[in-house]
Amino acid sequence: MTAIRHALSITRDADFAQWYQEVIASADMAEESGVRGCMVIKPWGWGIWERMQALLDRRIKAAGVQNAYFPLFIPLGNFVREAEHVEGFAKEMAVVTHHRLIADGKGGLVPDPEAKLEEPLIVRPTSETIIGDAMSRWTQSWRDLPLMLNQWANVVRWEMRTRMFLRTSEFLWQEGHTAHESRDDAMAETLRALEMYQAFAEEDVALPVIVGEKPANERFPGAVGTWSIEAMMQDGKALQAGTSHYLGTSFADAANIRFQDREGSQQLCHTTSWGVSTRMVGAMIMAHGDDDGLRVPPALAPFQVVIVPMLREDDGDAAILEYCAGLRAALLQQSAFGEPLRVLLDAKPGKAAAKRWDWVRKGAPLIVEVGPRDMENGKVAVLRRDALWNLDNGKPAFDFAAKDEFVTNAAAVLQQIQQFLFDEAHARREANIVRDIDTIEALDAFFAADKRYPGWAEVQWSRPEGGALDKVVEQLKARKLTFRNVPLDAEPANGACLFTGEPAVERIYVARAY
Amino acid sequence: MTAIRHALSITRDADFAQWYQEVIASADMAEESGVRGCMVIKPWGWGIWERMQALLDRRIKAAGVQNAYFPLFIPLGNFVREAEHVEGFAKEMAVVTHHRLIADGKGGLVPDPEAKLEEPLIVRPTSETIIGDAMSRWTQSWRDLPLMLNQWANVVRWEMRTRMFLRTSEFLWQEGHTAHESRDDAMAETLRALEMYQAFAEEDVALPVIVGEKPANERFPGAVGTWSIEAMMQDGKALQAGTSHYLGTSFADAANIRFQDREGSQQLCHTTSWGVSTRMVGAMIMAHGDDDGLRVPPALAPFQVVIVPMLREDDGDAAILEYCAGLRAALLQQSAFGEPLRVLLDAKPGKAAAKRWDWVRKGAPLIVEVGPRDMENGKVAVLRRDALWNLDNGKPAFDFAAKDEFVTNAAAVLQQIQQFLFDEAHARREANIVRDIDTIEALDAFFAADKRYPGWAEVQWSRPEGGALDKVVEQLKARKLTFRNVPLDAEPANGACLFTGEPAVERIYVARAY
Repeated sequence: MTAIRHALSITRDADFAQWYQEVIASADMAEESGVRGCMVIKPWGWGIWERMQALLDRRIKAAGVQNAYFPLFIPLGNFVREAEHVEGFAKEMAVVTHHRLIADGKGGLVPDPEAKLEEPLIVRPTSETIIGDAMSRWTQSWRDLPLMLNQWANVVRWEMRTRMFLRTSEFLWQEGHTAHESRDDAMAETLRALEMYQAFAEEDVALPVIVGEKPANERFPGAVGTWSIEAMMQDGKALQAGTSHYLGTSFADAANIRFQDREGSQQLCHTTSWGVSTRMVGAMIMAHGDDDGLRVPPALAPFQVVIVPMLREDDGDAAILEYCAGLRAALLQQSAFGEPLRVLLDAKPGKAAAKRWDWVRKGAPLIVEVGPRDMENGKVAVLRRDALWNLDNGKPAFDFAAKDEFVTNAAAVLQQIQQFLFDEAHARREANIVRDIDTIEALDAFFAADKRYPGWAEVQWSRPEGGALDKVVEQLKARKLTFRNVPLDAEPANGACLFTGEPAVERIYVARAY
Repeated sequence: MTAIRHALSITRDADFAQWYQEVIASADMAEESGVRGCMVIKPWGWGIWERMQALLDRRIKAAGVQNAYFPLFIPLGNFVREAEHVEGFAKEMAVVTHHRLIADGKGGLVPDPEAKLEEPLIVRPTSETIIGDAMSRWTQSWRDLPLMLNQWANVVRWEMRTRMFLRTSEFLWQEGHTAHESRDDAMAETLRALEMYQAFAEEDVALPVIVGEKPANERFPGAVGTWSIEAMMQDGKALQAGTSHYLGTSFADAANIRFQDREGSQQLCHTTSWGVSTRMVGAMIMAHGDDDGLRVPPALAPFQVVIVPMLREDDGDAAILEYCAGLRAALLQQSAFGEPLRVLLDAKPGKAAAKRWDWVRKGAPLIVEVGPRDMENGKVAVLRRDALWNLDNGKPAFDFAAKDEFVTNAAAVLQQIQQFLFDEAHARREANIVRDIDTIEALDAFFAADKRYPGWAEVQWSRPEGGALDKVVEQLKARKLTFRNVPLDAEPANGACLFTGEPAVERIYVARAY
């Protein structure tokens, strides 16, 4: 086994946070904008988000949820109606106070004191209050229910410490908002959205997730219950990749979302909300990236196959480009994941080897190089991004395939790569979960400071509430640990609570988290 | 010819502005949000915008433009760099001054004085300045050019008088931003975008447009030249439905967008920008709607065919629903406009006739009703939205077709409807343009106050500049008239300028406008 010269300057092992930044920069996905807390999403990063949007939107529509669009601004008086909700968000919002600028007499501009808003507007941090207001107009009768809406939008939460894709002041997401006749209906929708997120994460993002309920201290402000999908990153930390909330009737009460029930009396709706954001792009990077850069699951890749012609800037180039164009046309006739393949012929000037490494760092699933000899022999040189290296000689593991055979097999190979990424992430997660911790000492040993990537502990607990829960959460916080969720499909509890010593009622995940 | 009982309570002729509001409300497209100047776009309106996005996005990508995403907020200092640009926008922007709220001691919240931003942020009214900032980092060499970017985003311009879709404080759009080596390249891109908008308007929205250059007084603030597509609404007014700007080098100078040219010296880029917004939805309504409500061009319709089963709430319903489901499945196998048909089986409770009129008001291109007798005879009752009435008896003009025949012909009929809407709008426009006005008196007569829908006048002018242009614009303003554009494909000038009496150099449209 020979040493490999990886395409990044830093490895995951050396410094995971630095590695994350380098993946984003070298894959040309995004960059800091110069505007506090806001990022610029560059075409490759945006293309991946567009794919996520398309695939998740299809799932949302298939469930009968309708897209709509609601205002960016929320009048302050509207926002403050749900008390707990305000408490949770009031500390981190962009506040619009003026609607005009005026010359400051020094060549600059300042907010015009004459144009001060009577009531400040906040830039939506989430839209329960503004959509609830519309719902109150739209639900008259049980016949109007369920009312199931979704919007794709930007939201703003003022963040002091930001990290690209993971925590930015402005971020993009979809937020589903539904209203129902009963608790049961609303709970069923809450869990349907959760399962939809699981399917999206696992099938589209190739990201295995643990599905479960958040403990009370991690609930969405104002919610009765919050459920999440949690994914393990390669540094062992957890990332909450989507949430679904059962809001009970408190938001309906605050916004006056009522309906006439089947018996003719007025009732409050039971509402839900659920969201997945550009954070998922960060999750994808940290779950699948390697020391050569990003690896994009084929279902999400803006280009699944990139063809790199080896041009010599001479008369032979035209023939190679024609051969490559024919290859692209043939690949476009193939389908994977129910859609025609997405294929780029990268014919821009530049050395083939440099382009190859650019596409490796960008994580294109299949990179195909074509030189004069390949063309003569009717062949192509194929690199699989998920099996980049020949471990015997430390060189790129090109597969020299007949062109037609490659075309015929391309879709199947892309499906294999998708599966490989999922399996690899799943195996890594399972290898890094412990389920037999039954003392705080054992927990401390598992999360010992010198263990860099300790993974997650699934422990048994008694589901303490109120002050008792706060105490446990503080205990964890002192260890830089958090509760993730109570997995829906866990084994029943059969021991004592790790924290209270009382009989355990269920299992819960403990981990460091993003 | 019998009197027809139309589906709206008001006709276009009686009050066009009221009619517009009723179309939007009765088609369930949008409503006022309660947030000043902001609207809620409801599922049917949003579905149409989603279709517009999909079709225009395809055209944008086909031109090699890449989508990306830039911050919602622009630091004030960044915005003020291009002086003319500031002058044009400074009067109508949302200004963020604080990033936190605090209790006011009376149960409410106020902006926290401790959390006042050092530099206010403005909510983007357009993104030249923020995207220019990124371009300055991304263009090093002529090899990086052209740099062609687009974003789909919300923008905010504080508007005092708003009208749904036409003028709202927050609106949605795409904004293309490109940087080039030379004036010629940038001008070519400006006109390419303009032609793309024409094709989108005419082929997708079935909206004939006049393509031309805006006069200097209507230029985008800071631009060297602005071009537009202008559409005639049914009240004869003009609506600017898309613009494309050649920005010269002034934005590049302000944002420092430079590149090393082929000879090795530093040059400023020539930039362009171009945009189409949710205003296009308003244009579609006012170009195609009739006294029965909205008519959606089939290429844009979220559902092109709506199947309404005639249910009797008895045992026979199951068979009808099955028949309708089979019809839907068969239609989904058909394609129009290069995509599978979009077909809804409206099986929700309610009278078929009530549902029929709902879909008429929503403008679904084909409404298909199926009752027990239709089913027995293997037939369907088809209403074409563009030929709704039997003018002889004043009743809906149902076509009783064999089911299989309807399925086979549906795509062709949809294409015909698309063409019909275009042809009708085109004929109406041409019938309402005058080209022989050569005195101000004739202009006044054409736009006389008692002529409700006078249309447009194409007049000859000498292209005055500076103060001379201002004088002419004032003359028009006093008549509530505006210049629209100098059409690219007009006959050459051959007379005197209507305004200055000097030899005319070109033709320009004069109209009332939205």
